[in-house]
Amino acid sequence: MQHPMIENKILLTDCPDDKGLIAKITNICYKHQLNILHNNEFVDFETKHFFMRTELEGIFNEETLLADLAFSLPQGTNCRLIGNRKKRIVILVTKEAHCIGDILMKNYYGGLDVEIAAVIGNHAHLKSLVERFDIPFHCISHENLTRVEHDKLLADKIDEYQPDYIVLAKYMRVLNPEFVSRYPNRVINIHHSFLPAFIGAKPYQQAYERGVKIIGATAHFINNELDQGPIIMQNVINVDHTYNAEAMMKAGRDVEKTVLSRALDLALHDRIFVFQNKTIVL
Amino acid sequence: MQHPMIENKILLTDCPDDKGLIAKITNICYKHQLNILHNNEFVDFETKHFFMRTELEGIFNEETLLADLAFSLPQGTNCRLIGNRKKRIVILVTKEAHCIGDILMKNYYGGLDVEIAAVIGNHAHLKSLVERFDIPFHCISHENLTRVEHDKLLADKIDEYQPDYIVLAKYMRVLNPEFVSRYPNRVINIHHSFLPAFIGAKPYQQAYERGVKIIGATAHFINNELDQGPIIMQNVINVDHTYNAEAMMKAGRDVEKTVLSRALDLALHDRIFVFQNKTIVL
Amino acid sequence: MQHPMIENKILLTDCPDDKGLIAKITNICYKHQLNILHNNEFVDFETKHFFMRTELEGIFNEETLLADLAFSLPQGTNCRLIGNRKKRIVILVTKEAHCIGDILMKNYYGGLDVEIAAVIGNHAHLKSLVERFDIPFHCISHENLTRVEHDKLLADKIDEYQPDYIVLAKYMRVLNPEFVSRYPNRVINIHHSFLPAFIGAKPYQQAYERGVKIIGATAHFINNELDQGPIIMQNVINVDHTYNAEAMMKAGRDVEKTVLSRALDLALHDRIFVFQNKTIVL
Amino acid sequence: MQHPMIENKILLTDCPDDKGLIAKITNICYKHQLNILHNNEFVDFETKHFFMRTELEGIFNEETLLADLAFSLPQGTNCRLIGNRKKRIVILVTKEAHCIGDILMKNYYGGLDVEIAAVIGNHAHLKSLVERFDIPFHCISHENLTRVEHDKLLADKIDEYQPDYIVLAKYMRVLNPEFVSRYPNRVINIHHSFLPAFIGAKPYQQAYERGVKIIGATAHFINNELDQGPIIMQNVINVDHTYNAEAMMKAGRDVEKTVLSRALDLALHDRIFVFQNKTIVL
Repeated sequence: MQHPMIENKILLTDCPDDKGLIAKITNICYKHQLNILHNNEFVDFETKHFFMRTELEGIFNEETLLADLAFSLPQGTNCRLIGNRKKRIVILVTKEAHCIGDILMKNYYGGLDVEIAAVIGNHAHLKSLVERFDIPFHCISHENLTRVEHDKLLADKIDEYQPDYIVLAKYMRVLNPEFVSRYPNRVINIHHSFLPAFIGAKPYQQAYERGVKIIGATAHFINNELDQGPIIMQNVINVDHTYNAEAMMKAGRDVEKTVLSRALDLALHDRIFVFQNKTIVL
Repeated sequence: MQHPMIENKILLTDCPDDKGLIAKITNICYKHQLNILHNNEFVDFETKHFFMRTELEGIFNEETLLADLAFSLPQGTNCRLIGNRKKRIVILVTKEAHCIGDILMKNYYGGLDVEIAAVIGNHAHLKSLVERFDIPFHCISHENLTRVEHDKLLADKIDEYQPDYIVLAKYMRVLNPEFVSRYPNRVINIHHSFLPAFIGAKPYQQAYERGVKIIGATAHFINNELDQGPIIMQNVINVDHTYNAEAMMKAGRDVEKTVLSRALDLALHDRIFVFQNKTIVL
Repeated sequence: MQHPMIENKILLTDCPDDKGLIAKITNICYKHQLNILHNNEFVDFETKHFFMRTELEGIFNEETLLADLAFSLPQGTNCRLIGNRKKRIVILVTKEAHCIGDILMKNYYGGLDVEIAAVIGNHAHLKSLVERFDIPFHCISHENLTRVEHDKLLADKIDEYQPDYIVLAKYMRVLNPEFVSRYPNRVINIHHSFLPAFIGAKPYQQAYERGVKIIGATAHFINNELDQGPIIMQNVINVDHTYNAEAMMKAGRDVEKTVLSRALDLALHDRIFVFQNKTIVL
Repeated sequence: MQHPMIENKILLTDCPDDKGLIAKITNICYKHQLNILHNNEFVDFETKHFFMRTELEGIFNEETLLADLAFSLPQGTNCRLIGNRKKRIVILVTKEAHCIGDILMKNYYGGLDVEIAAVIGNHAHLKSLVERFDIPFHCISHENLTRVEHDKLLADKIDEYQPDYIVLAKYMRVLNPEFVSRYPNRVINIHHSFLPAFIGAKPYQQAYERGVKIIGATAHFINNELDQGPIIMQNVINVDHTYNAEAMMKAGRDVEKTVLSRALDLALHDRIFVFQNKTIVL
């Protein structure tokens, strides 16, 4: 038999707000002799919903812990206990290299704690770059396929790798509803504007035409309305009249890649709750 | 007779792009024995239009200078020579104090080089604050008036003061087309979002509902499409899930007031060209 | 007799780290039938110290609550229960108006929840501005006085008002150790650089001479080493080669005033713990 | 004979300030039938020095152009005409991968217009990464060598490649005066603090100990005083009490790499004048 050992796990709890929730949860952890390393909670007073993320250290009896929590917490509580194994992702790309490149590089030097199981492109463009990092690249062209057929091939290939998250690193195609609903709150996209400004195609061209003085990027989970999913992170940079659409696009790359890899980092550390199309980041 | 004296003036030139424009303009200034203190120019290669702002020092013979420029520059050139007298503004307000307050305070300690001729409110709310700074406040209520009637009263009062610019410091009413066309590129508004996101009413409520992670403010000239005028300056701050609409509104005040007073400062220093619904800030 | 009523109070706890602290504290609150509106905690693993800020709602039996906490928490625990009465401040100034002006204006329109008991200047310069807001201004000149004598007069005048905090809004004199030790972690200063860069006099001149591309401001508590106190908040703006020291000084004002009033806002909401010359902001 | 062809070149001029400089320079360009695409100038009124960067398009007679300029411009004028060939750099590294990785990646996808001639490390650590991008890597260990001996080996290897610039991408050794004076204003370093704060070793540890709320990075040319060279670019990010020195170090990587590659981009486009230990970026 395996000897019990000291581990770190993350407890994610959300439920309708009530008195004494923190006391109840932390007590149960205390009775299980689990040490709380970090604890963050948030009560949304508009929706009367409670969220808590607790980093625990100790010897876990997972079943009884979750049972004790379920017993003492209100109806409609979600409790998840997550071990700190390395998460696995599959990355979808098209032709642009800066976002995938940043993730590959951060992963290479240990800046992102993740296993990149595979990269899938609808073009072969980035094959060479990805394979330099000893990661499998699959080209699944969309040519001569309906969107549904193509997304089905993507999903089948993705499912071979059983990823925790799917990262759209400048994947320039819209995914169909069936695909999206297959991976709820597990598909992270980077959009190259400060949403909700400039939804849809060519946001830099739109930004140039509007004459804005800031441009930005938005990392969000995909849902079934274009660029309407829960926003995880956004950032902007200043531009001026000397920037045409192409100059904005070039300047925007550093923001896009940074926003995407930071948002991914939050997901990898189980810091994101999604509730009513918003994120609570604890 | 008055003795000729050394002055500083600003020469604003814009015209269709052509070879040798900088040489021609700077030569004429040189022949007039005018010293160039600062010079900024920009060529918009999309519209093939040239813009130049030149700070000059010397003894000006304005007529011959402008004649010489008109003679040597291409058809469709606009040349303006602006003396450095203090600009005059009229400020329109409703009830919120932070933007007008910042302008009053900056003006008080010399942080804005402007004469505030008067403040006009559609409510009496800010009368006491404005009068503490010995500036006339006029309440022109919109009650029982059509928009056109009310805007007409505003315009009549404004015109008594012959302002260079009209500043909408959280003036919460839409101005009618006649009013707007009466003061082309002279009405500066602050909108409490990073346009084009959240056009129209209650942008913070919209921002809260969308769950954005940044909020911002936009200073722009008014035109006849709501929140569509040429953008002068924008800035943002980070927010998170702990901000409801009211918290965003409070946090946004510092950005709004700073963006508005900086945009005004640019206008007061004749740094802004407006061309095809965009600003070139030199 | 006064009827018990529902109140909001803030519980601040810090103590050596231990297992079960959150459970113990939240349990005691729960047993007192107090509802936790917000809770933030932090464990400093370097110093093994625990910090927690809890916003509570309910009917308080303050003595027994603190007794219960003292009984169950480890040796060396500090517990403070703070009612949400409006805090009182005294502001010290010299000649510059932008920081005091921002505080006066925010206070005027309700942007800062504070009572400004008085303003004291070592020059009479700002008397008129302060009195426009119906706040007493005292000029206590430093002329013909030793620093100790002058600071003594300041302290005597300050103590008349029993302020919670003393705000140095561009007060351009160094305060002597006796003064400082009289108000531990209660004197908030704004320094016009991103400390520890450019300690001491003329930071903008120093910044100009060094040719930096960013300038900033730092709000910190005063201790007895010049510009070495615990930092509460910092912010910066970009500058370039076109800024001389005076231009930096002008551009820096908006950062200074915003950093100071935000830092003050944190103090007014009891969000700041000071521990070993650092701040923990919860 | 080669047929004359239309080219783009950059004219860099700096000289003591005088009347009519812009007119003289732009006239000569005009007489040479050269079209000015972009022109930026700056007069430093403290040092009475004039700087101008002019992007020219046309058929160049370089000798006569420079002769004409030398003839009409004042004593002590520096004029350089730079063709738009791709610049060559050699990069020095130690063990950290994020800065070199960002340059390699940007160069790979065309985000930096540069030829990376070689990378030299004092450790072999990054050999594999560099060679994945088909760029020669040389390990020149400092072990058992004096600094002077080691720097001599570096310089010899560098000189084999005749680079325009030498980039220190987290090269963690101080270079000796002889090395530095060999490449005046050609060695670009990234320092992981917002200089002049935290000069020297372990800036993040220093920042942690001081309890700052912002950390940053500074790209600068190397001179013979440690971290005292002319600053090209700086940027910062916010941190708080939850960051220990290691967390700051990790968070700082994105700022470091972005600041370094942007500063390099400015150098590659000949936008930087160095004058009296400051940079003028046009």
